[in-house]
Amino acid sequence: MAAQLIECVPNFSEGRRPEVIAAIVAPFKAAPGCHLLDHRADEDHNRLVVSLVGQPGPLQDALLAAARVAVAHIDMATHRGAHPRIGAIDVIPFTPLKNIDMPACVALAHAFGQRYHDETGIPVYFYEEAALRPERKQLEAIRRGQYEALRDEVKTPQRRPDVGGAELHPTAGATVIGARKFLVAFNVNLRTTDVRVAKQIAAAVRASSGGFCHVKGIGLALTDRGLVQVSLNLVDHERNPLYRVLETVRMEARRWGVAVAETEVYGMLPAAALLSSAAYYLQVAGFDPAQVLELQLLETIGDGE
Amino acid sequence: MAAQLIECVPNFSEGRRPEVIAAIVAPFKAAPGCHLLDHRADEDHNRLVVSLVGQPGPLQDALLAAARVAVAHIDMATHRGAHPRIGAIDVIPFTPLKNIDMPACVALAHAFGQRYHDETGIPVYFYEEAALRPERKQLEAIRRGQYEALRDEVKTPQRRPDVGGAELHPTAGATVIGARKFLVAFNVNLRTTDVRVAKQIAAAVRASSGGFCHVKGIGLALTDRGLVQVSLNLVDHERNPLYRVLETVRMEARRWGVAVAETEVYGMLPAAALLSSAAYYLQVAGFDPAQVLELQLLETIGDGE
Repeated sequence: MAAQLIECVPNFSEGRRPEVIAAIVAPFKAAPGCHLLDHRADEDHNRLVVSLVGQPGPLQDALLAAARVAVAHIDMATHRGAHPRIGAIDVIPFTPLKNIDMPACVALAHAFGQRYHDETGIPVYFYEEAALRPERKQLEAIRRGQYEALRDEVKTPQRRPDVGGAELHPTAGATVIGARKFLVAFNVNLRTTDVRVAKQIAAAVRASSGGFCHVKGIGLALTDRGLVQVSLNLVDHERNPLYRVLETVRMEARRWGVAVAETEVYGMLPAAALLSSAAYYLQVAGFDPAQVLELQLLETIGDGE
Repeated sequence: MAAQLIECVPNFSEGRRPEVIAAIVAPFKAAPGCHLLDHRADEDHNRLVVSLVGQPGPLQDALLAAARVAVAHIDMATHRGAHPRIGAIDVIPFTPLKNIDMPACVALAHAFGQRYHDETGIPVYFYEEAALRPERKQLEAIRRGQYEALRDEVKTPQRRPDVGGAELHPTAGATVIGARKFLVAFNVNLRTTDVRVAKQIAAAVRASSGGFCHVKGIGLALTDRGLVQVSLNLVDHERNPLYRVLETVRMEARRWGVAVAETEVYGMLPAAALLSSAAYYLQVAGFDPAQVLELQLLETIGDGE
């Protein structure tokens, strides 16, 4: 059987102490079969975002090793940061990449959540596709009031963890574990200082107000630059591809005579998210990703593992 | 030092006998450090086109092993095929991919050409960036009259090989070896049956009639489909990117009220050739290929070799 490949973007509540950050990511560098693609620490957020790709077994082992380091060094009672969080290891999402589908990733998240609790004592909430309660599909709902509020509310039936008892870990809080599709962060900057334009366009394209089913978004001002931004999360770039969302933003902006100044892709994205837009604009018929040298090389190297 | 990576697309004069084709490609499958991405045999052309990526050392060793197989099975005296050719191993182009530049690829082609002649007795012509005579930059010039004409003309000073004496190998003919950039085959199909439109647009965009410096092209009719085609080779997709060439074709076609029906990318191309067009149309500012998950994964895996 061809090797399964998943992506995982664990978030840790440490963005300031370089030695702790280095210790947390060390297990990801050491594990064969687990590839550390990127890690970014943000001091304001006091948060570390790690991008991993690997085979499910080695990747889960490395996650547990990293979690043990985080538990040893992070105390949520004293942690401060601008980004919402409920635990030292705040969130662990699994994303299917190759030779594995979403149901298998959900099963993996559930099995990992149990093992994670057994080995660390940290209670676990399941979210997105792995949610066991509908209201826990949304990460925001699980993190409501953050660590400080959850410390008390964890005792209520509504906020009881999916794995573990009705109390948080004394220093590490709780962890949200789940399975989801690849999320593409895509911002469209517009040549106007009128933030209402960005807000109205965000409302037109996002799911919560009736737009595209797999798009989240807000409008905000980029005051320093004299622009406004439609800040988007594409939670299913296959169903709602970049080009379609961008062209819809462009079309709506024309109502006010506003042009797109530029766009930004934040963080990582799968090649397919850009190739589908290249194929659309270039009108390429019958395009096959196997024609892309690097993708085919990756297949070839992967087969040899 | 990070591993050097080159691409190589050797062409063999055998497109009909499956057992010979399998024997020729076998060394490319067996060699660690050499990756066989694709191979296509064409019966009409009686020709085999192989796509390889690898480190220079193992790739050259595998090329020599494959050449020995080709010499043992192909006799140019009896070979017939629709594609121009001068030898059993007709052409071997090296293309720099990573951690190697064009001058180094030219040096590699020259050193390989000498070794190739020493080990096989086949005379060698150098072409493209590796050409030692200006008139041999163009493959067509070296192949003029094909094997049948070259058999006699090889004795003239003008057609004497760059490596080897003034005669062809008794069965394998001669081989053209060189270094060149990645060639992207890109066709634009237009909604008209008037082939003059395709011919005039090809003339407008290609270098030989004053268009883009790194574009070759012809216009032809796709009679069965009721379309015409501007058939293009982009010999430097960084200097003349796909989007710029396509938009110029589109702009010229508007003169006749003709629309682009579709485009075709033939064969393989590097990810950058499509990503640059995606970034143009999506207006992505500050885009970094390291943001593409598969490309970063390839870097990570490559570092581990």
